[in-house]
Amino acid sequence: MSTKDARYERGLKTLEAITGGTGRAVVEGMKDIAPDLAEWIIAFSYGDVLSRQGLDLRSRQFATVAALTAMGTRTPQLKVHIEGALNVGCTPAEIVEVILQMAVYAGFPAAINGLNVAREVFNARNVSVETPG
Amino acid sequence: MSTKDARYERGLKTLEAITGGTGRAVVEGMKDIAPDLAEWIIAFSYGDVLSRQGLDLRSRQFATVAALTAMGTRTPQLKVHIEGALNVGCTPAEIVEVILQMAVYAGFPAAINGLNVAREVFNARNVSVETPG
Amino acid sequence: MSTKDARYERGLKTLEAITGGTGRAVVEGMKDIAPDLAEWIIAFSYGDVLSRQGLDLRSRQFATVAALTAMGTRTPQLKVHIEGALNVGCTPAEIVEVILQMAVYAGFPAAINGLNVAREVFNARNVSVETPG
Amino acid sequence: MSTKDARYERGLKTLEAITGGTGRAVVEGMKDIAPDLAEWIIAFSYGDVLSRQGLDLRSRQFATVAALTAMGTRTPQLKVHIEGALNVGCTPAEIVEVILQMAVYAGFPAAINGLNVAREVFNARNVSVETPG
Amino acid sequence: MSTKDARYERGLKTLEAITGGTGRAVVEGMKDIAPDLAEWIIAFSYGDVLSRQGLDLRSRQFATVAALTAMGTRTPQLKVHIEGALNVGCTPAEIVEVILQMAVYAGFPAAINGLNVAREVFNARNVSVETPG
Amino acid sequence: MSTKDARYERGLKTLEAITGGTGRAVVEGMKDIAPDLAEWIIAFSYGDVLSRQGLDLRSRQFATVAALTAMGTRTPQLKVHIEGALNVGCTPAEIVEVILQMAVYAGFPAAINGLNVAREVFNARNVSVETPG
Repeated sequence: MSTKDARYERGLKTLEAITGGTGRAVVEGMKDIAPDLAEWIIAFSYGDVLSRQGLDLRSRQFATVAALTAMGTRTPQLKVHIEGALNVGCTPAEIVEVILQMAVYAGFPAAINGLNVAREVFNARNVSVETPG
Repeated sequence: MSTKDARYERGLKTLEAITGGTGRAVVEGMKDIAPDLAEWIIAFSYGDVLSRQGLDLRSRQFATVAALTAMGTRTPQLKVHIEGALNVGCTPAEIVEVILQMAVYAGFPAAINGLNVAREVFNARNVSVETPG
Repeated sequence: MSTKDARYERGLKTLEAITGGTGRAVVEGMKDIAPDLAEWIIAFSYGDVLSRQGLDLRSRQFATVAALTAMGTRTPQLKVHIEGALNVGCTPAEIVEVILQMAVYAGFPAAINGLNVAREVFNARNVSVETPG
Repeated sequence: MSTKDARYERGLKTLEAITGGTGRAVVEGMKDIAPDLAEWIIAFSYGDVLSRQGLDLRSRQFATVAALTAMGTRTPQLKVHIEGALNVGCTPAEIVEVILQMAVYAGFPAAINGLNVAREVFNARNVSVETPG
Repeated sequence: MSTKDARYERGLKTLEAITGGTGRAVVEGMKDIAPDLAEWIIAFSYGDVLSRQGLDLRSRQFATVAALTAMGTRTPQLKVHIEGALNVGCTPAEIVEVILQMAVYAGFPAAINGLNVAREVFNARNVSVETPG
Repeated sequence: MSTKDARYERGLKTLEAITGGTGRAVVEGMKDIAPDLAEWIIAFSYGDVLSRQGLDLRSRQFATVAALTAMGTRTPQLKVHIEGALNVGCTPAEIVEVILQMAVYAGFPAAINGLNVAREVFNARNVSVETPG
């Protein structure tokens, strides 16, 4: 087991790797209303869970993008995690593949809405998609 | 564009690769009530979508397991796709990582229920989990 | 506006038309733990809502079967309303069409699970499906 | 079985019948990021599924409006399909009935939000609602 | 059993107590498109259900805020019911606790989105949060 | 901030207070497949979140029962938390009120299914319901 501080340090590093400035902004933005949530996001979500060794960060982001696209209710977080996917080395085309695949498991509207979020992120980052056929 | 038959052939091959006998059984099981659904699963889901080249099958199964765990309503399909994940080379420990990660995005009950499905699959396949810490 | 008794009488009649004995059993089954819910189902759900004139009962049951299939969390009610659809004159083939269509809007697992519920109802009622192609 | 081109042709015709210009715009809008999704919407969703003969287009649109209202996560598509319902001959009052009915199966917030989308469509089309009581 | 008018009177009083002007505005806003829904909200939701004696209004609002946060699809109603919670004597800090707790049961995105709605309500009402640690 | 051990100790105490033997069994049951999840449930869910001072345990359980009933996908956890509600002093009648209220926000099927879970718990605990009217 690790101390609180170790969890927090590890979490900050993983938060930085995955979501960069966007993630820090989300965490900072929670401090006025729920400072403990800000702390949990770092120490628990990123420190305990996403820092684990058993799966590479690219696979973790594919999983998160898939889940948020399928649930369809968490648009702001989907945007953060599509950015996160780019940050850890997923290509735009791979991200599009994951979202497209959700048409099968969660229906076409979920995939269409997910792609509209992805397009917004890609445009803001000025990256281009070349979806394989 | 490809012909119907090409889609179907490609789909059958991918269905075989991912879900093996289990997938064939699902498809066969639909033929009495909705033969066209059986055909769509092969030609569309597996032929058009899951056969695409832009993402490896391991990543595709991580995405599907994540989405089905997060939605929490599709237990029979989650079981099929945990099997599918094993079939394409995901380790039990990696599958557990993906499901654990859903505690962050969809809550602890989703992760607990997902792991209970995974345990059932692992036991039936006689594989053991060594989750990294 | 109508009195309580008028709502209740109207509701009972519509409950009978749509769900017959199955609906009565659901309502009776609630009386031990929540008698007011039993009363609301009759007076509100069936008396105020489902008795309205603006839409025929066949279309109402198509809507309910579609919604419950897409949500994917309400299996016992899906079963009751597939029976209800048969009771008001929807054919097995039409019910299958509605459920199949949900593959587009809610994903294939929703459609597969919905069809498995439908098969159970059809078998119990000894009706046969001839899905058009 | 039908060839790719037959599916596509049939799909285009049904897309036109149901969603008219709005549907074409959705499909066109996907081409930059996922041209294959645009093609699937036409060939699979509209060509394979919605063109099937076993159910009239009015009933199909009631089912879709019901499902999207109940899920509550797919507002852009709900809007498209309320328009589609009008296009295939559903009256505003019938569409309101279907959405109202979802109060029973998915709760009042789903119905209220669905009606707010419907009002927007009705106003844009300059059609008036006369809900029966 | 009580008459229609008694239900309506009781509902109006409870609607006033919980949601005040906001609730009246929602109900009024439905009258153009679905006057009966407006009436059901008062007579059924507030008259039959929320006026019941077995649970105090503070606990009822905790339950509603929890459910709407967890479902994550009903933002306008979540806003109304956070206001309602304040109206019946829940403190901002207690409301934050309920929303935070949803991180466990529905995931962090649900809690983050819920808190963003709460902040908006608190700011508009000029109340301050002091979340206990 | 508190150390890992303090979180764990506090969590164990709250787990014991809310879910007693049932909660311990859930946690133990996770140790074979995901020992870290077992630890997170204690240290994070119960230690960080549910042990917080800003809301009494009765209100917390009302919130959890409401959310799990409304989501409708987490039956095993709903059962655990109806037991938990009884353990912290909620009466059967109050629990029934919370579940009934979900008919308004998540639809009648959610409430019916929730009550069926509650009945099972009440019968196993040999407690009786007297729902107020």
